Amino acid sequence: MGGEVNASGATMPVDAVRDLAIRALEGVGTARPGAEDTANVLLLGNLFGIHTHGVMRILNYAERIAAGGINKTPNIMTVRTAPGLGMVDGDNGLGPAVGMASLRLAIDIAKETGIAAVFARGSNHFGAIGPYGYMAATHGLASIIASNATTTMAPWGGSEGRLGNNPIGFIFPRPGGFPFILDMAMSVVARAKIRTALAEGTQIPDTWATDRNGRPTTDPAEALKGFLQPMGQHKGYGLSMVVDLLAGLMSNAAYLTHVVSWVDEPEKAQNIGHVFILIDPMRLMPEAVYSERIEDFVRIVTDTPPSDPEQPVMMPGDREAQLHAAQTENGIALPGDVLSGLKTLAGETA
Amino acid sequence: MGGEVNASGATMPVDAVRDLAIRALEGVGTARPGAEDTANVLLLGNLFGIHTHGVMRILNYAERIAAGGINKTPNIMTVRTAPGLGMVDGDNGLGPAVGMASLRLAIDIAKETGIAAVFARGSNHFGAIGPYGYMAATHGLASIIASNATTTMAPWGGSEGRLGNNPIGFIFPRPGGFPFILDMAMSVVARAKIRTALAEGTQIPDTWATDRNGRPTTDPAEALKGFLQPMGQHKGYGLSMVVDLLAGLMSNAAYLTHVVSWVDEPEKAQNIGHVFILIDPMRLMPEAVYSERIEDFVRIVTDTPPSDPEQPVMMPGDREAQLHAAQTENGIALPGDVLSGLKTLAGETA
Repeated sequence: MGGEVNASGATMPVDAVRDLAIRALEGVGTARPGAEDTANVLLLGNLFGIHTHGVMRILNYAERIAAGGINKTPNIMTVRTAPGLGMVDGDNGLGPAVGMASLRLAIDIAKETGIAAVFARGSNHFGAIGPYGYMAATHGLASIIASNATTTMAPWGGSEGRLGNNPIGFIFPRPGGFPFILDMAMSVVARAKIRTALAEGTQIPDTWATDRNGRPTTDPAEALKGFLQPMGQHKGYGLSMVVDLLAGLMSNAAYLTHVVSWVDEPEKAQNIGHVFILIDPMRLMPEAVYSERIEDFVRIVTDTPPSDPEQPVMMPGDREAQLHAAQTENGIALPGDVLSGLKTLAGETA
Repeated sequence: MGGEVNASGATMPVDAVRDLAIRALEGVGTARPGAEDTANVLLLGNLFGIHTHGVMRILNYAERIAAGGINKTPNIMTVRTAPGLGMVDGDNGLGPAVGMASLRLAIDIAKETGIAAVFARGSNHFGAIGPYGYMAATHGLASIIASNATTTMAPWGGSEGRLGNNPIGFIFPRPGGFPFILDMAMSVVARAKIRTALAEGTQIPDTWATDRNGRPTTDPAEALKGFLQPMGQHKGYGLSMVVDLLAGLMSNAAYLTHVVSWVDEPEKAQNIGHVFILIDPMRLMPEAVYSERIEDFVRIVTDTPPSDPEQPVMMPGDREAQLHAAQTENGIALPGDVLSGLKTLAGETA
């Protein structure tokens, strides 16, 4: 398997991580195409530096499969309902397997009609959004991709969790280069940052979370009993609903409080939904013109004099590009518990 | 003309405001179809309570026409570049005339293929976004509509204005009712709120604006010399670029600093761009199913126990629906300067 190994983990070549991920998924009974799709999506999560949405997720997916909450041998059905539209029924399969089936259909349609929207239901956690948009960009396609999720936020002015921290991504190809990737969730911060503040005994800004009554709080303990606040306040609240209307409601999946929590009921199907909107910019202008314009665009933004001379202005995707290049060269560092967990699932001795 | 008139303005029936708006536009030489489109879009701005994007804009449009900055008799060209895609060259016409030509093309395409994206260039300020989405919704279509704008924001971490406060809207039909309308700009607040703070001698939150060096400030005077901060910090920065990539770059319009400022150079064409993405939900499921699902969605959100019992949870579009109903019934209140300005343009004695 190669790479530098120590007690707490190992740094492994990308192909070795992919092989291990596929074998771990096969070890819990996942059929090959879905296992490969899942490994590829999660691996790109690692490569983009989003390790929480990387191959470590396989440990959680395996638990859900073992509990009967995810179907390891789904019959994923795709149908084209209009020249530019597709729907996918994931049959409660692994999210990345459903996501990749949807993405492939969307690419096929967009290549034909210039734009496609594919809506998926009967799915599960599908990893990060960037990987799907990155793959669409390798086909020269721009994308808007989103998923709903279990409820962790209260509606604006409300005091009960009825909205997911629904992620949405916008990805634009840069021919010959790494794409523009904006991949964002709807909360100001992730819950993990509040846990860190609690552990360190510090207060949090009153814009991060509310207490259980929906009132902004600076106390991390109260915040953890309450709700994440949406980024941009009422704007993020609105945008979170937009994602659920597209990814959940229009896909015929569950939405809002209908989404089953995998934490509370790991044995049940979540019926999460996704949406993939793909646009072919080369049906609007020649690739050379598009390429010249987007490189000019990036130059204008990144040439802006920074307010801190040590911190040049960055584009969304710059950090992912750097981490992708570095890890492709040097390998991916897997923590000990992730490595041993994957090896156990794969039937190897850890 | 009817209605209650006083020294400072008048409350007029909707049809009377529309007639006056059309005659004012014709008074400055705008041809009939463009004048009607412009009046209708701006009038809906008034009806939704967005009076800054209502018929008062005609006074500014007339100045731009007089200065030679807007073409009052444009030859608006539309072309379908792929089964699902259209492009519009507005020939520097009034923004709402270009916008309505684009919307009509998008509706035609979406009815055929289930989804459409139409990109417009050679345009100008096109009013609020809600009106276009509202009209799409009357055809049963969901929409994502956006426009770029002149630069008022610095890139995140930057100290020079290179991004517009680019608005984007997401509108979903509610069959038989007023649609879900989320219409938002990218800044935390509008510049007008900072001017109000300056006038009242109060400080502003450090999340609203930066000074001219790109550093957050609580001093409204420094803020007015600096830049608006994006909502959701780096997330709003990213989203503002997404709007410009779709509405400006992909439409072949100007983008970022290439957009001409109508304040600094009112005699020049701005070459603003818009994008209209329309989706037909009834090609995904029967209307009765869609309708039942979205009414259930609204019920779940608005039934959330409020954190302040006096302030029930609202949906985006609720406020617009109330104001639309009230003003349709009672008329639109036009301030004296707007009323006299429109009458002068229409060739009436004010």
